[in-house]
Amino acid sequence: VIEDVVLLAGGVGGAKLAHGLQAHLGSGLKVIVNTADDLERHGLAISPDHDTVMYTLAGIDNREWGWGIEGETFATSEMLERYGEPTWFRLGDRDLATHIVRTARLRAGHRVTDISRDLQRALGVEATILPMTDAAVRTEVLTDEGWLEFQEYFVHRHQEPEVRDLRFNGIEEAEASPEVIAALEAAHAIVIAPSNPFVSVRPILSVPGIEAGLQTARTRGAPVVAVSGIVGGKALKGPADRMLSSLGYEASALGVAREYTGIADIFVLDVQDAALEGAIGDLGLRTVVTDTIMADAEGRARVAAAVLTAAEGTDADPA
Amino acid sequence: VIEDVVLLAGGVGGAKLAHGLQAHLGSGLKVIVNTADDLERHGLAISPDHDTVMYTLAGIDNREWGWGIEGETFATSEMLERYGEPTWFRLGDRDLATHIVRTARLRAGHRVTDISRDLQRALGVEATILPMTDAAVRTEVLTDEGWLEFQEYFVHRHQEPEVRDLRFNGIEEAEASPEVIAALEAAHAIVIAPSNPFVSVRPILSVPGIEAGLQTARTRGAPVVAVSGIVGGKALKGPADRMLSSLGYEASALGVAREYTGIADIFVLDVQDAALEGAIGDLGLRTVVTDTIMADAEGRARVAAAVLTAAEGTDADPA
Repeated sequence: VIEDVVLLAGGVGGAKLAHGLQAHLGSGLKVIVNTADDLERHGLAISPDHDTVMYTLAGIDNREWGWGIEGETFATSEMLERYGEPTWFRLGDRDLATHIVRTARLRAGHRVTDISRDLQRALGVEATILPMTDAAVRTEVLTDEGWLEFQEYFVHRHQEPEVRDLRFNGIEEAEASPEVIAALEAAHAIVIAPSNPFVSVRPILSVPGIEAGLQTARTRGAPVVAVSGIVGGKALKGPADRMLSSLGYEASALGVAREYTGIADIFVLDVQDAALEGAIGDLGLRTVVTDTIMADAEGRARVAAAVLTAAEGTDADPA
Repeated sequence: VIEDVVLLAGGVGGAKLAHGLQAHLGSGLKVIVNTADDLERHGLAISPDHDTVMYTLAGIDNREWGWGIEGETFATSEMLERYGEPTWFRLGDRDLATHIVRTARLRAGHRVTDISRDLQRALGVEATILPMTDAAVRTEVLTDEGWLEFQEYFVHRHQEPEVRDLRFNGIEEAEASPEVIAALEAAHAIVIAPSNPFVSVRPILSVPGIEAGLQTARTRGAPVVAVSGIVGGKALKGPADRMLSSLGYEASALGVAREYTGIADIFVLDVQDAALEGAIGDLGLRTVVTDTIMADAEGRARVAAAVLTAAEGTDADPA
């Protein structure tokens, strides 16, 4: 039976599936989270994907906005604006406490992984969220105006420029943390969340040691299950559909499946995309067609159950 | 006529007189503020006396509490507490923006004086508030339990331990900023606020260059006017009365006057202490007896007017 699962996740979509999996697995869930979207604002170290997953797993996420903390206020941010600070990356008052604590402990020399774990524990998170690396990696996107920092493109420019290429600065010098390696070694199954394949999942898989750990897990029979974040040709959230097109892929679940060929064993696609099942199967992926929309806690648990059932249907003995 | 005035100030009492003087002098007022109470909390650089004076001069001070900003909220602080951070030094959400900006700019290599000026300008402060030095100076008080950091004694321990001695760590290596020196050189009069003589005023006068600048001003005829912060034997705010006793002074306006002998020319005492006028005059100080209670903006302007009138009664030609 599958008890220990690793989820590779970005922000919102990853957080929803993580929440569903946590309901089934509790502390057996380890989420390896993208940190290439991290940024520094007002001198504070911010890790948006980690924090979105953390707030969601702690049950304090703001479901109306899809980011931040429920009941959030913006008094500090308004005052920062009065001081002439650019505040397009909007930071709530409660959220700021996370960045303040992270920054203080980083400056005191603590590891990102340890700091993150302390934050999660303080909020009562049952699963473990592991930053993909303790090193600093920063995504940049190539647009017709040149290279832009990820959050400049994503938040400030509202994902308007077309993305021609991507790079993950610092990735060669990064390495997977011992906790990430141990989680991959112990995993009965590895799940790739319905996050953006290019800016959420690819950075994780590009950290030296992580794809190798994933392939070793597959070799010993732990399946890799990928869930499509493209439904009916549209990204559930964010610019993944347009990125698929501008990077030369097909903007569909099939395009996502192609990106995961050689990495995933099982591909979960939405019922709306059932017509693509044959073409995805032809890539060598076992397909599962199900309702992948996670509109509420029930939906999250339902998709998680489908993922776990699919993984259990394979030879998942971690010995 | 007196147009350019330097005020030496600590926190609340200094802020009130500064507010009154600003009403008369506008940009002619330069406040040299104590920074030996500064501290670092949650990795943020906090300058309580500077910020109290700044918020007061900007008209956004919280008059009910006597510290912080009006309408202040504490969402960040509550979250910091949830993360296990000690929060006895309570920081409001708006106030935090000040510390975040200060800290970011300090780390970027800016001078405390320049950062402070930018903050003041953003809030529309007419006067100039000058940190006494750009260097870090930290007051510690000797108690029966040993040396305590100032805010540990002042805020966390509610000023309960008796103070046996004081020291200002880093004061020998500190120096007055060029702006502080220039303000003293241009001053038609220097005013010592009704702040704590030991932990607010003495650190300022101990910064190498400041007392010399003050004495040079006196030599060319600019009077030094000190206002007693002890009325009827009690400190208007804080532990100055108990400090006078435990440090071997008399807990009265006379005790304060003794501390300023050789520094001040004119001593302003409250009508409640009129009986001490003779003894204070015997110290060589010219005395002014007036209502020194600054309960509201009118009271602040009234005391400021009394101080300026006293200074004008002397030879105050700065040439």
